[in-house]
Amino acid sequence: MVQLSAKDQLILDALTSGCVRTCARLISRIERGEPGLVELLRALYMAGGSEKIIGITGPPGAGKSSLVAKVIGVLRRRGNRVAVLAVDPSSPFTGGAILGDRLRMIGHATDPEVFIRSMASRGRLGGLAKKAGDVLTVLSAMPWDFIIVETVGTGQSETEIMHYAAVVVLVQTPMAGDDVQAAKAGINEISDIYVVNKSDHPDADRFRRQLEAMVGLGLRLEGDRLWRPPVVKTQSLVGEGVDELVDQIGQRFRTLAESPELSRQRFRHRLRHRVVEIVREMLERDIQSGNGMLPDSRLEPVLAREKDPYELAREFLSGGT
Amino acid sequence: MVQLSAKDQLILDALTSGCVRTCARLISRIERGEPGLVELLRALYMAGGSEKIIGITGPPGAGKSSLVAKVIGVLRRRGNRVAVLAVDPSSPFTGGAILGDRLRMIGHATDPEVFIRSMASRGRLGGLAKKAGDVLTVLSAMPWDFIIVETVGTGQSETEIMHYAAVVVLVQTPMAGDDVQAAKAGINEISDIYVVNKSDHPDADRFRRQLEAMVGLGLRLEGDRLWRPPVVKTQSLVGEGVDELVDQIGQRFRTLAESPELSRQRFRHRLRHRVVEIVREMLERDIQSGNGMLPDSRLEPVLAREKDPYELAREFLSGGT
Repeated sequence: MVQLSAKDQLILDALTSGCVRTCARLISRIERGEPGLVELLRALYMAGGSEKIIGITGPPGAGKSSLVAKVIGVLRRRGNRVAVLAVDPSSPFTGGAILGDRLRMIGHATDPEVFIRSMASRGRLGGLAKKAGDVLTVLSAMPWDFIIVETVGTGQSETEIMHYAAVVVLVQTPMAGDDVQAAKAGINEISDIYVVNKSDHPDADRFRRQLEAMVGLGLRLEGDRLWRPPVVKTQSLVGEGVDELVDQIGQRFRTLAESPELSRQRFRHRLRHRVVEIVREMLERDIQSGNGMLPDSRLEPVLAREKDPYELAREFLSGGT
Repeated sequence: MVQLSAKDQLILDALTSGCVRTCARLISRIERGEPGLVELLRALYMAGGSEKIIGITGPPGAGKSSLVAKVIGVLRRRGNRVAVLAVDPSSPFTGGAILGDRLRMIGHATDPEVFIRSMASRGRLGGLAKKAGDVLTVLSAMPWDFIIVETVGTGQSETEIMHYAAVVVLVQTPMAGDDVQAAKAGINEISDIYVVNKSDHPDADRFRRQLEAMVGLGLRLEGDRLWRPPVVKTQSLVGEGVDELVDQIGQRFRTLAESPELSRQRFRHRLRHRVVEIVREMLERDIQSGNGMLPDSRLEPVLAREKDPYELAREFLSGGT
């Protein structure tokens, strides 16, 4: 069992009873990479309930932020409390998260039942996917009905983050003359629902048909039945199709709830990705601390080319020295 | 010692004697993620000589590709054989490497003493930094005088790749009214030489002064002396300043050669990053194979919330079960 300090116990109690201020403060500590949070995160994981993370991703310009704002609106009308984590990849040169800011401007800023937070890598090395996973662990221990995680999905970390969601929505938009570009490894394999946004675009129908054909080719066997991810048309600016999208998301959660074996399988998938990110972060912290698992003495034989880095890595995973 | 198959031994011999076709084929196998290459890579690492990797990075639009083309020109005039690896991050949506293609168009395509190769993530999950490290291991075993690795440095993987270079050049360009944006963690900490490209820009001098002031604040103690990274002005389109840049790169390599303790320290830094990437790749392969180090049975207690993922990750690194 996890032994918490009195202070961490207070934080845990505040979070499980839904204190948003405590949540915001803890996320800032995670973002800064503050050490000593592991015990609290472990306890939060144990306090977590059923899976309720919705992942929303897609290329820049697909209208994700306005779609997320409309999805929040529909969920609120249906009486749900919603947390949103917008993860922005940021160049080490250009900085800055804007997804969350954009979301906040669109509305819901004064609704106490909605929590919106953005996170960016801010040019720091590594750890974005690990940190987002920690934040989702915090949010999952709180009484939100749904947690939405949004990324622009242009990099490796952001694709990785989508692996933490129970239901993944891939948002695309028809561009003049463009064919469907979705059939890329990684995102496509884990998408549960496809959205064609900006469906008033002249190419929208052609695009949707292509997408449906492609999705049809990728029918998945889930347990004892075939799963064909639905394709939903939306116009996020005016809110058209958003009710149907929320219905489809709800349907997917129900399917998962009714199929214990499918749920477990998806859970294992998420957990494997999560453990890799945590291990990677542990290794990176270890490196930055300059001692620990890779002291100079273990590197010397490699420097002298008596040993190679592949062998050193292998020893690592087998716990050898 | 590494035991090679007869076929791998032939490949090793071809590479160490400089066979470019063998090199190109092996890089393709690395890019495809072909299994069974570890023994060959281990042998190639052992065959590698002194460090000769120059990293060139900077934001999109800084003129890196034309600068690299001019740097190749100067190195060739001075009698050096040069290999270039251009690593392009690619969105899971938009695909495609172009850095290397751009380089090839600029020239040197028909020079047998110059090898240019581009690599992209092509939307695949993970592994770009690991694969680039493998390719650099291959190139380092060959008789090149210098190896240049170029990235646009907009993501985590590309920043990571710069940690493999012995000498890192950060290329920036003054934008109208922009202040220096370089002081970001990660890249800045490992840059040895700063370039202000497009130095004919009206804001170039202001930009260079800001950069010099910033670099001055970040003086590094290296062994028993202070190191202040030089700031070089270039116009990559006409080649101005490129000779001075190559001189500064050569000077940095000489400093490293003359300071065994500094060299070792930098080497250990590179090696630690390399081992993390190899371990991460091993874990990801393991995950994709679906069995191995994280079988379902080890995940069950976490699914039942009797254990948490942080503890599972910790067991991993300590070799526990």
